[in-house]
Amino acid sequence: MKMTAPNNGGSIFSHAVVIGVGLIGGSIVRCLRREGLVQRISGVGRETANLERAEQLGIIDDWSHDLAATVASADLIILAVPMGAYAQIFSILNVALPAHAIITDAGSTKSHAIAMAEIHLPNHIDRFVPAHPIAGTEQSGVEASFDSLFQGRRCIITPHAKMSDDALSRVYQIWQATGSVLIEMSAEHHDTLLASVSHLPHLAAFALVNGVCETGKQQPYDPFEFAAGGFRDFTRIASSSPAMWRDIALSNRQALLQTLDGYQQQLTRIRNAIEHEDGDALLGMFTSAKEARDQWLKTYGEKQ
Amino acid sequence: MKMTAPNNGGSIFSHAVVIGVGLIGGSIVRCLRREGLVQRISGVGRETANLERAEQLGIIDDWSHDLAATVASADLIILAVPMGAYAQIFSILNVALPAHAIITDAGSTKSHAIAMAEIHLPNHIDRFVPAHPIAGTEQSGVEASFDSLFQGRRCIITPHAKMSDDALSRVYQIWQATGSVLIEMSAEHHDTLLASVSHLPHLAAFALVNGVCETGKQQPYDPFEFAAGGFRDFTRIASSSPAMWRDIALSNRQALLQTLDGYQQQLTRIRNAIEHEDGDALLGMFTSAKEARDQWLKTYGEKQ
Repeated sequence: MKMTAPNNGGSIFSHAVVIGVGLIGGSIVRCLRREGLVQRISGVGRETANLERAEQLGIIDDWSHDLAATVASADLIILAVPMGAYAQIFSILNVALPAHAIITDAGSTKSHAIAMAEIHLPNHIDRFVPAHPIAGTEQSGVEASFDSLFQGRRCIITPHAKMSDDALSRVYQIWQATGSVLIEMSAEHHDTLLASVSHLPHLAAFALVNGVCETGKQQPYDPFEFAAGGFRDFTRIASSSPAMWRDIALSNRQALLQTLDGYQQQLTRIRNAIEHEDGDALLGMFTSAKEARDQWLKTYGEKQ
Repeated sequence: MKMTAPNNGGSIFSHAVVIGVGLIGGSIVRCLRREGLVQRISGVGRETANLERAEQLGIIDDWSHDLAATVASADLIILAVPMGAYAQIFSILNVALPAHAIITDAGSTKSHAIAMAEIHLPNHIDRFVPAHPIAGTEQSGVEASFDSLFQGRRCIITPHAKMSDDALSRVYQIWQATGSVLIEMSAEHHDTLLASVSHLPHLAAFALVNGVCETGKQQPYDPFEFAAGGFRDFTRIASSSPAMWRDIALSNRQALLQTLDGYQQQLTRIRNAIEHEDGDALLGMFTSAKEARDQWLKTYGEKQ
């Protein structure tokens, strides 16, 4: 009698557990279901209403608040929660997860994710493949999820020394199923790049809005009354989740400190040129910024 | 025989000259024509094609490159040019303008506009009424102008010590005709408010893009490749005219230096909290920024 592989109906995973069924987690599992990669999908999270809605929408088959019990039969874990929750979740997975299960995540900082896994997930570190899909919208929650969120967007995979090649190739299949363009680089490079183009802009927007508040305290007028379209666009990201950005700031500490220092140097150069009424220096700095920004928009911006 | 006022057909000015027939200048004279406030409108500027287009569109009656000759018959001057051009234009107006003509402007900084007028326009300083309509679009040139650009937007009038009440009341009529909500305040207050909500965001965006370029030089990857929607919105204003922003930066020097220092302090507070891993401090700063920004959007943002 011929041996056959277990009948997974074409699926490559029999039981996926998505931890955090929000915009990102919900969109990932929508893709896995569409591509038929997984037989059963369970959701784990804190908000009952959101999990119930995910089940109603058919995005997950079942849900639970009990992470340890749910992952006992899992062969794929997708972690889509704020960075601040990694330590606790990894600690539970470390003892509750079957030995063959693969783990990937969608967190915004990667050195920290690997460091947390080394400390709290040592039993499974060889099967943890960190990833970061560069995609998102203003919305949150499973209701906002959709299966083309990652289509054509970059997804950065950051391999680490203890990771197995088998786990890497299986996680590639996951992220390829989302339609992402996959790019591999070190966690350090990822964190520096994202500090520059994503994390710093958020901090700069928070700082700017707080600066406007300070100006208001020293004035008989409310400066916000005179803010216009430029202010709206510049500060849109200051309406992002404070807790999420606290987590990102702390978990990308080293890269962000360097990036913040570089930004302050750029501001100081502008400040000095204004102080010394050096119009040529200002024109040079503003022109190089405009050219780089226009070039970005032409090359990449329209895809965003 | 009864004495009658000169027959202006209901107009309050017989000959307006708009210096700089772009988005702002073109939109102002569209309003003046719509409201029937002016009998004849002449345009003065540097670009022949733009002036010809303005005449074709019926926005101006005639145009010239010769400022002195054109203003010789004017009773209203509308100045809508970059701040860097004020000194030269005022010097010409000072000798060429009739004694009864009223002057207003639409420049982004007001202490500098008044200082320039005191130096270069002493013969007419009593009839110079500085104004700043808080409106604009991404576009430039007369083709982009439209007569509802200022509708419901704030226009700040900054009276000065040497200005006559008659000139002020006549300039009110001009700006009221644009549909603006008029607000009077000192040039110093104006400059501080605008430094905070408009000028600083532009400098911060220029600095941020230049910082990303620096990061790129130290990396094997192009950071711009990983920039997404947040970056696009945050840096949109970095695609603004470098020459215009050089002029604004230099002409609002005092207020901008203070505002930049305040911004650097906000950034340093965030930096220190990250360095000391003070999550509570970060959460507090990000939350206050988010609340202020959300409140702004609710109160004023939808009108922008």
